[in-house]
Amino acid sequence: MATFGGHAIPGSFFLLLGFWLTVKYILQHYWRTSQPKGRQIMPPFCKRMHYLEGGCLIVGAFVGIMVEQFVVDGPHAHLYDTANHSWVKLMNWQHGTMYLFFGISGIAIVASTASKLVPVGVDRLSLSLALFVEGFLFYYHVHMRPPLDAHIHSLLLVAVFIGSACFMVEVFIKDNIVLELFGACMFILQGSWFYQIGFVLYPLTGPVWDLKMHDNMMFITMCFCWHLAVALLLVACTSSFVWL
Amino acid sequence: MATFGGHAIPGSFFLLLGFWLTVKYILQHYWRTSQPKGRQIMPPFCKRMHYLEGGCLIVGAFVGIMVEQFVVDGPHAHLYDTANHSWVKLMNWQHGTMYLFFGISGIAIVASTASKLVPVGVDRLSLSLALFVEGFLFYYHVHMRPPLDAHIHSLLLVAVFIGSACFMVEVFIKDNIVLELFGACMFILQGSWFYQIGFVLYPLTGPVWDLKMHDNMMFITMCFCWHLAVALLLVACTSSFVWL
Amino acid sequence: MATFGGHAIPGSFFLLLGFWLTVKYILQHYWRTSQPKGRQIMPPFCKRMHYLEGGCLIVGAFVGIMVEQFVVDGPHAHLYDTANHSWVKLMNWQHGTMYLFFGISGIAIVASTASKLVPVGVDRLSLSLALFVEGFLFYYHVHMRPPLDAHIHSLLLVAVFIGSACFMVEVFIKDNIVLELFGACMFILQGSWFYQIGFVLYPLTGPVWDLKMHDNMMFITMCFCWHLAVALLLVACTSSFVWL
Amino acid sequence: MATFGGHAIPGSFFLLLGFWLTVKYILQHYWRTSQPKGRQIMPPFCKRMHYLEGGCLIVGAFVGIMVEQFVVDGPHAHLYDTANHSWVKLMNWQHGTMYLFFGISGIAIVASTASKLVPVGVDRLSLSLALFVEGFLFYYHVHMRPPLDAHIHSLLLVAVFIGSACFMVEVFIKDNIVLELFGACMFILQGSWFYQIGFVLYPLTGPVWDLKMHDNMMFITMCFCWHLAVALLLVACTSSFVWL
Repeated sequence: MATFGGHAIPGSFFLLLGFWLTVKYILQHYWRTSQPKGRQIMPPFCKRMHYLEGGCLIVGAFVGIMVEQFVVDGPHAHLYDTANHSWVKLMNWQHGTMYLFFGISGIAIVASTASKLVPVGVDRLSLSLALFVEGFLFYYHVHMRPPLDAHIHSLLLVAVFIGSACFMVEVFIKDNIVLELFGACMFILQGSWFYQIGFVLYPLTGPVWDLKMHDNMMFITMCFCWHLAVALLLVACTSSFVWL
Repeated sequence: MATFGGHAIPGSFFLLLGFWLTVKYILQHYWRTSQPKGRQIMPPFCKRMHYLEGGCLIVGAFVGIMVEQFVVDGPHAHLYDTANHSWVKLMNWQHGTMYLFFGISGIAIVASTASKLVPVGVDRLSLSLALFVEGFLFYYHVHMRPPLDAHIHSLLLVAVFIGSACFMVEVFIKDNIVLELFGACMFILQGSWFYQIGFVLYPLTGPVWDLKMHDNMMFITMCFCWHLAVALLLVACTSSFVWL
Repeated sequence: MATFGGHAIPGSFFLLLGFWLTVKYILQHYWRTSQPKGRQIMPPFCKRMHYLEGGCLIVGAFVGIMVEQFVVDGPHAHLYDTANHSWVKLMNWQHGTMYLFFGISGIAIVASTASKLVPVGVDRLSLSLALFVEGFLFYYHVHMRPPLDAHIHSLLLVAVFIGSACFMVEVFIKDNIVLELFGACMFILQGSWFYQIGFVLYPLTGPVWDLKMHDNMMFITMCFCWHLAVALLLVACTSSFVWL
Repeated sequence: MATFGGHAIPGSFFLLLGFWLTVKYILQHYWRTSQPKGRQIMPPFCKRMHYLEGGCLIVGAFVGIMVEQFVVDGPHAHLYDTANHSWVKLMNWQHGTMYLFFGISGIAIVASTASKLVPVGVDRLSLSLALFVEGFLFYYHVHMRPPLDAHIHSLLLVAVFIGSACFMVEVFIKDNIVLELFGACMFILQGSWFYQIGFVLYPLTGPVWDLKMHDNMMFITMCFCWHLAVALLLVACTSSFVWL
């Protein structure tokens, strides 16, 4: 992961997921408001969207875990090196664990769409847990790094944990379009922030950033707010576009 | 901003906003309770008040950003000085970012009043976000300052974040007059506390405060509670005055 | 306050308040469950109980402030000593501020009982604020004290802030007897813990406690849990006694 | 407790409790969904399950306290050793306190099943308090230990406090099967994590773990997520098995 590409891939994934959720929520909201009251059947296109979303998450998680394990410098399914008494490539294992929970979340979405026996809200709880685990592992990731590196990752955690809290609340407060779009917005913010981390820590062109300069940290904090503003704008534009 | 005037302007702005919200909420509450049940149409004067509020926020934010950019010692829209490899006037940029989010909040208020397609609660969410961003930027503002300076700003954060939480809860619990007035009260508290910060850090008359004396910090903590009591009193008086 | 008596007086006050609230809540709960549905008139004895409670809080707060100001070594209404450039008896002023908010809470209870125009929930919000202010001032109180002294006061904060959160939730979730009794229980816990603080820091008999011994801190932590168990027991006993 | 067995016993207890709660909640959920609306009588087998659960908790807590007190190197009901001016075996007393609150929780379950006068939700509140007290005592337990020891215990606290919050929310949001199963899942996670603590700190075979190696801490953090995944899987399997 310690390259620009390693941050661009999850970034693109979260950006896509964020846009997808925005579109899905707007379509569902349109369906809800246009239906006569009392009827609460999920339309067939909705079901297909859920299957697609769940399927993508499962396949994505599986591919992600495989890649993390079997890249050239990966752990190749070895966890503990008994010869050297040391753990093998824990970074890759941690990323695999994160993917695992997004995969579980995909399974929960498929299961709750396929069967009425699965209680409502399990899909959101699992998505909330996936974000929580991602934030949880990242939180212990950033210890003992240079100040700017730690700071830029801890800003990522703000987006991750707010997103997690958002989906957790959705387990109880259902069909609240403001909450749903805010959750999608947090995914877009997370995605664009992954790109920002890539640009700052592994710049494609130009000089390396000074990881200890206080002004850089002040700029990055402000930059996070700009990303938030752009994410809000993107959700608003996508929503109005889909609605029309 | 590092003058008494620089604290008095936002202070006056928040005081005004707090009083305005108090009056608005009481009028809305009066309208709700005096209407027969079932009718939920927003009266025309209410719409006009929302437009006025949104317009003021947008204009205020625009003027604020322009002033921060183009004052004599401002950044004049330059962000990075490539000659010196340093950021230009990040303080002004940060204040501009804060104004930006209050402007976004103004746009959200206008949009949700003008169109029924904008989901209910977007205006409160955007106000909550504006306060959150303000608090978020302030939080990283106060590092490495003298104790009293840091303390007096962190007390401001108490008012800011409680206000933010308050408006966030309003997204879900609508038309709760106690919650609405408490949110307005937090704005008044924030406004009067900005004045207090100005008086302490840039005294108009008398000696400079000792920024390291422990007794000063104890007094300021207590003083914050007095401001809260006065803010509660002001909201109570304004409310009963408007009601009658 | 730095005597055993200075901790016993607020302790007794909170114990009394806790028992009083328990009795009141049980009587109200009995009235609610015995009424036919739809009727929601507050019985006259309930009104009188509220007046009594509010009146006691107002008088108690007034007396408390006067005593703190005009005891022999009190500040006698002087806040700043211009001769020595120092604050006068800030401790007494802080305690007075705490009393002030309990007085405001008393006014809110009387007002909301007397007039139907005062929105429901203002009394609980003001009680929550009074506890918050108490905890807020205590929080900055305990800096730079010996470990055991700081620890025993920070345990008090646990009871204060949980109580404050409890009454804040009651603003939104009304007439939930479990929540109401838990709030009363937090008052009893706070009261009995004040006595415990008095016994530990200003022992009536026996040797002085070693304020730096780790075992003492472990015991005090456990002791807090015992106080909680006793408070739960007292609320349970009082409740069943009143009910029968 | 400082042996493998001392961690395996509470681990097994929490694992059993977690599975029991899963089965109970699924049966209750089945009963609720299969009943015609309006009928809300608790079936007799449900009552018997509650009595059994409460009884087990009471007996378990009583036995636990007795064992902690009267094992060979226990305090034998002595709290303070006046000869040496020191506390006697505070560890055992602390564990006894934890058991006490699970016992109180058992009493609350029995009481609220037996009598309709006990308000609904008292059983969950008491379970939430038992977990809170457990976490509260553990929190002050882990000071001044080697890094890995402190870390592995603080991960336990994550499961304990999330579980406590979960049952606290259940006091207000009743009969939400997702929430109930998540609470049960937290018990299973806690149970399996107790075993993990035992394996790491008191390994049955193989070399002792290096308590200061950073890689060990990274692995343990990840391992906690795997336990969570397994706990989710176990709850899902048990649920579908019981349902069918």
